[in-house]
Formats: sequence, C-alpha cells, structure tokens
Amino acid sequence: MKKIVILGSTGSIGRQALDVVNAFPEMFEIVGLAAGSNVQLLAEQVQKYQPRYVSIGAKEDTFTLKSLIKSNTEVFYGEKGLINLAELEDIDLILVAVSGINGLLPTLTALEKHTTVALANKETMVTAGSLVMEKAKKFNTAIIPVDSEHSAVFQCLEDENLAAVEQLILTASGGPFLKATREELASVTPQMALNHPNWKMGAKITIDSASLINKGLEIIEAHWLFNVPYENIKVVIHPQSVIHSMVQYKDGSVLAQLGCPDMKIPIQYAFTYPQRWTNSFTRLDLFELEEITFSKPDFVKFPGLALAIEAGKIGGTMTTVFNGANEEAVLFFLNGRIRFIDIPQIIEKVMIRHQVLEKYQVSDILEIDRWARQKAREVMANL
Amino acid sequence: MKKIVILGSTGSIGRQALDVVNAFPEMFEIVGLAAGSNVQLLAEQVQKYQPRYVSIGAKEDTFTLKSLIKSNTEVFYGEKGLINLAELEDIDLILVAVSGINGLLPTLTALEKHTTVALANKETMVTAGSLVMEKAKKFNTAIIPVDSEHSAVFQCLEDENLAAVEQLILTASGGPFLKATREELASVTPQMALNHPNWKMGAKITIDSASLINKGLEIIEAHWLFNVPYENIKVVIHPQSVIHSMVQYKDGSVLAQLGCPDMKIPIQYAFTYPQRWTNSFTRLDLFELEEITFSKPDFVKFPGLALAIEAGKIGGTMTTVFNGANEEAVLFFLNGRIRFIDIPQIIEKVMIRHQVLEKYQVSDILEIDRWARQKAREVMANL
Repeated sequence: MKKIVILGSTGSIGRQALDVVNAFPEMFEIVGLAAGSNVQLLAEQVQKYQPRYVSIGAKEDTFTLKSLIKSNTEVFYGEKGLINLAELEDIDLILVAVSGINGLLPTLTALEKHTTVALANKETMVTAGSLVMEKAKKFNTAIIPVDSEHSAVFQCLEDENLAAVEQLILTASGGPFLKATREELASVTPQMALNHPNWKMGAKITIDSASLINKGLEIIEAHWLFNVPYENIKVVIHPQSVIHSMVQYKDGSVLAQLGCPDMKIPIQYAFTYPQRWTNSFTRLDLFELEEITFSKPDFVKFPGLALAIEAGKIGGTMTTVFNGANEEAVLFFLNGRIRFIDIPQIIEKVMIRHQVLEKYQVSDILEIDRWARQKAREVMANL
Repeated sequence: MKKIVILGSTGSIGRQALDVVNAFPEMFEIVGLAAGSNVQLLAEQVQKYQPRYVSIGAKEDTFTLKSLIKSNTEVFYGEKGLINLAELEDIDLILVAVSGINGLLPTLTALEKHTTVALANKETMVTAGSLVMEKAKKFNTAIIPVDSEHSAVFQCLEDENLAAVEQLILTASGGPFLKATREELASVTPQMALNHPNWKMGAKITIDSASLINKGLEIIEAHWLFNVPYENIKVVIHPQSVIHSMVQYKDGSVLAQLGCPDMKIPIQYAFTYPQRWTNSFTRLDLFELEEITFSKPDFVKFPGLALAIEAGKIGGTMTTVFNGANEEAVLFFLNGRIRFIDIPQIIEKVMIRHQVLEKYQVSDILEIDRWARQKAREVMANL
C-alpha cells in the first residue's frame, strides 16, 4: 500500500484525491490529512480514513475537531501542523493541495524527507521556484505535477529527449470572459468570475483563470519544473479544454495529452506514476466534441498574463511579489472592494516598487511575500 | 555514422528518406539503395550517395543502370536483389519502403540479420503479421513504424504501460470523398481519387486512402505491431490531419502525436529513435488552423474499411487475401477497368471463396497471395 499524506483535504483537489483513493481502497493508506477551516468535513474524512495524524488551520478549531472524531488520530494545527505532516517518515507521497504560499514550507520539508511531492499548489513554484528545485535536486526527491497542464507536459516528456524540447505549449480555456470586451470586464462581479466554463475549482484559482493570471502562474511553474526558458513556453487559447497541454520537440513532432476536464485523472497519475491504473472515470468522447479550436491570448485585455511573464523573465524575487500581490488583490476582488480589472493594476504597481533579489533564502521569500501583500493593500487604498 | 539501406528509394517515402539523410550528412551512410523501375532517378541517387550496393527491379534495367553510374557500386536486380540488400551484415537500419507484398521477404531477412527495420510498407504486416512479429521476437530485432499513424502510436506508447493501453485511436483524413454521396462514388475517376487533400503519396496508397481501405490496412498493421485486439482499435475521421493518432490509457488519459502532414518527421524519428534530432522541417502552427474536428467513419459508404476489420478479426490468412485482392483491384481501377466502388466488391467476393489457414509459413502466404490475385481477376472478368 502507498502511504499518503494530503494537505488541503477538504478543498477541491483534496476531495477529488480522496475520490481517487476510494477507487483503489486496497492500494492507498491515508496517514495524514490537513485542512484549513472546514472542521466538519475534515472530521468526516478522519472518521472514514482513520489517519494517524490530522491538522486544522486554527488552534481554536482543534477542540471542535477532537470532539467530532472518535479515532486515536493525533491533532495538529496551523502552519506547524502542516510541517508536522510533511516531515513524517516512511511516507510514499504527499499531496500539497493547500492554497497560496502556505504550500511552500511543507513542500520544502517533504523534499528534505525524500517524500515524493505531488504538487497541486503552483504558488509554491511561483514564489520560490529555484529554492524548491534546488532542494529536490539536493535530496534527489521527485516532484510530480498535479495541475492538468503540467501533468500533461509531464506525461509528454520523454526522459531521453529532455534536451530536445523545443517548446512547451500550455493550453488555456480562456475563462468565462474570453469574448468579453474591455468595458464589460470593468463591471464583472465575483459571481460572474467564479463561473468557470469547464473546470470546477476553488475560488482563488477560478478568479485567476478568469484573469488569465492562472496561465501566467503556470508558465512560471513550468519554467521551474521542466527547466525550459520563458521564450520557449507558449500559451494557446483552446476553449474546449480537451488538449491539456503539449510538448513540441526539435524534430518537429508534437506530443499532447488529452482527456475530460476531470482533475481525478492527473491526481491519480501523480499517485501511481510511473504506472497507470485502470479506473472507471469518464472517458473522453471525441465524437461528442463539435470542434476544437486554437487562438492567441489577448495580452491587452488580460494584462495580468503579460505581467506574469514579465515577472518570470525579470526573475529572482519578482515572481514572489507577483504572487503575493495577486493573492491579496484576488481577496479584495472576492470581497467586493476592487474591480476585476484592478487586479493586474495593483500587481503592476507593487512590482514597480520592488527591488529584486537574485539570490534568496526562505526567510527572504516570506518577508517579501508579506511586503508585497502590504504594498498591495496600500495601493488598493489609494486606487 | 548510422549505416542505412533504403528499399524503395525512388518512391515517395524513399525520396523523403533521402531528404532526411541530406539534413544530417555527417550522421548517415547509405550502404544500399533499391528501386523498382525508375532507373534514371536511381542512377542519380547512386551518383550522389555512392552506396556499396544497388538493386533495380528488372534484369534488363541493370545494363542501363550500370551505364549511368560511375561508382564501384555493385548492381543487383529483382526480388533477389532486395534480399541481397536485406541480408547485408553490420547495417544499423533498413527502410522497407517498397510497395505491396514485395516488402515481406526483405523484412523477414533483415529481422534475421538483427537489422532494425523501419517499416513503411503496411502490406508486409497485413499479409503475414504473425510471421513477422514471431521473427522479430525470435531474433530480438526492432521494427519501427514509419507510417504517420503508427509512428504517432509508437511515440505515444510508454514502455512501462503497454498493458495499460485501453485503445488505439487511428485518425483518418477521410480522403477526397469524405463528403461524396454513394452515387458520386460510382463515377469517381482515377484522377479524382489520386487527388489527396493532405498527404502527397504514391498512387497505390492514395487510392487506398480514398477508399478508406488504407485505414483498414493500418488497423491490421497496428494490431500486429502493438499487440492490441481489433476491438480496441478505433478509427476517427479527422480531416485536418493534425493529430496523427492517439493512445488511450486505462486511467482515462489520452496521449496524441501532432504535426504537419510531412512524412519526413516520422521517417526521421524511425532513423534516430530513441533520440530526436533537431531539424528545420516546417513546424505545426496551431494558429493557422481554423478548427479541428472528429467524426465517425461511414462504413456503409466505405465498405472496404469494414471488410478489412472483418478480415482482421477472422485472422489467419484472410488478411493476406484481403491485401492481395485489394492490390489487384486497385491496379484494375488505376487502369480504368473497374469503377471505384467495385474495389470492395471484388475483395469481398474473393474473401468469401477463401479457406482460412490459421497457421502458415511464408510459402503459404506467397501462394495465397497469388491465389487471391488470380481470383480477383476472375471476379473482375465476371463483374
């Protein structure tokens, strides 16, 4: 049995990961679960999977959690709780599916413990890609991407031909506002932005998808994960989300991964890699598709995408700032305090104020993240 | 340098294979060339590549050939000439790009000599798939497919997950008569059928593409090459020929290979496998595509496709008969002696008369092939 820890078990990815575990009850043992604030669901998961360890976001929730569970599960909380789960020994795989920069420290910890990381948190790579990849290399620990685009690229990469990659082609649905005018974007409500055409996801990533900033974060993540220069990572708008991404090789051949828009498939692949296990998830039906199309992204209408690429090319801690400012701006938007089109404006204004560090440590990243969020709040106050 | 023999060097695949060689002049040495009747072009190729051996179809052409070449190249002819080239020692790879059943004996010979076979001749697998695969296994010699569909499948197959293949999805352009009515098919001329929308190929394969029989031959070839049951090989009409074929795995994930409709890419892949070498062939431009579509093949309008699958499922020597009758019928059609829609009718009538051998030797295959051609001529005479 594969021993698994899931960080973010009550979120969209975490719940689908448990669906994968349910599909192979003999093959996986859940050793640890962690969630943010959904105590009720976490307690139900603990009852069902009887993990040895569980962690919840806030200390005050531990009492409720303990009262709801009847197993001998040990209860942790907060950032330290995530680290406790990440540093467990003899774990085969940890799924990092918490939201935002919270994924960074547990990821680094698990890599040090030689625990394979199934990474569903792109902010980890965006804020501190070089640190994460250095750590993975130093401890010879694998990182397997869970994001559908990165899983697709990972599946299309041939070990013997990594040097023959000409470009990565990341597909993008284009989100709910693909055909909106710039004027219409100004009056977008959170409810409108949360209505993604193809994928059911958490709120943060759904807003990022609507602004195409998610695709920008993916470019930065792909740059680090696959060691490909930004110049060689392209974005293609493909509204049907059938092709999840592609790798073009230097011999002119392109490999692509296709499937239903079902996150259980890349989650399962990360759990079973390099094997593929038989499941009964819905299959792609090519005949149901009317057509599939490709077009260029509109960098003018979606300036957040261009900013992300710019941050990536500047490098160093600029992507940390991009990520922190974006996380803050998305919260503002979800709380109705700014307009949708203010998100990239806030990010840009924070980026301009940043002095890039080329080399950095974790402490620098955490400090710069805090700085970026603080600046984002200041910028918002002066909008 | 890779030492290479090309059988069928003046044909469409052979000429494109030499284009690949031209792109990497330091990497390949042409040791042998063979052609059917194009003495002039073969002589030019001999002058350029100075192979040690050359072979031409007819004995009487050897005199012209010898008079045209100034090198010390040894000249062979006929079926024996192909065998002479196939049994050379210390060859890295032989490209079998002759047309029809002529590919069979050279392929078997090369496999015995441990010479990797780049197979661009599907009739070899269709007429005697089990013999060819047995030989490859016994002598532990690789067969690398060159056909764009089979190359695509080959590129999408993961060594560690061959048992996890759920189905192969072969794409088909649908040929020039995709939208023709059954009535219009009755009055198709050879010239109309030779006008393929996407691929430039030889006459035989172009007619097979127009009748969808080519896709049937490909299904049979894929069955043998990849050891996949007929039930798990699907055909999808995809007129844009962008996706060259796909592999669907049992975990719900689909891998596909895409590219321009340029045979140089799969030829080069066969020559350099498992590596990919940098070339300057035209790249796929997704943005130039209007859309890509998928639909089901029309088995009523193209009964040859259904017959091929039936022959495959019956197995044994029925596919030999299918192939022989088709080769003969295509010749009749090209010579203006039968209608386009008579091709599958002739094949069916020959198939009905055949007593299948489950086990067979090469001599059986050659005899049954002759029988099928003779029967096809008889059926035609009685149309």
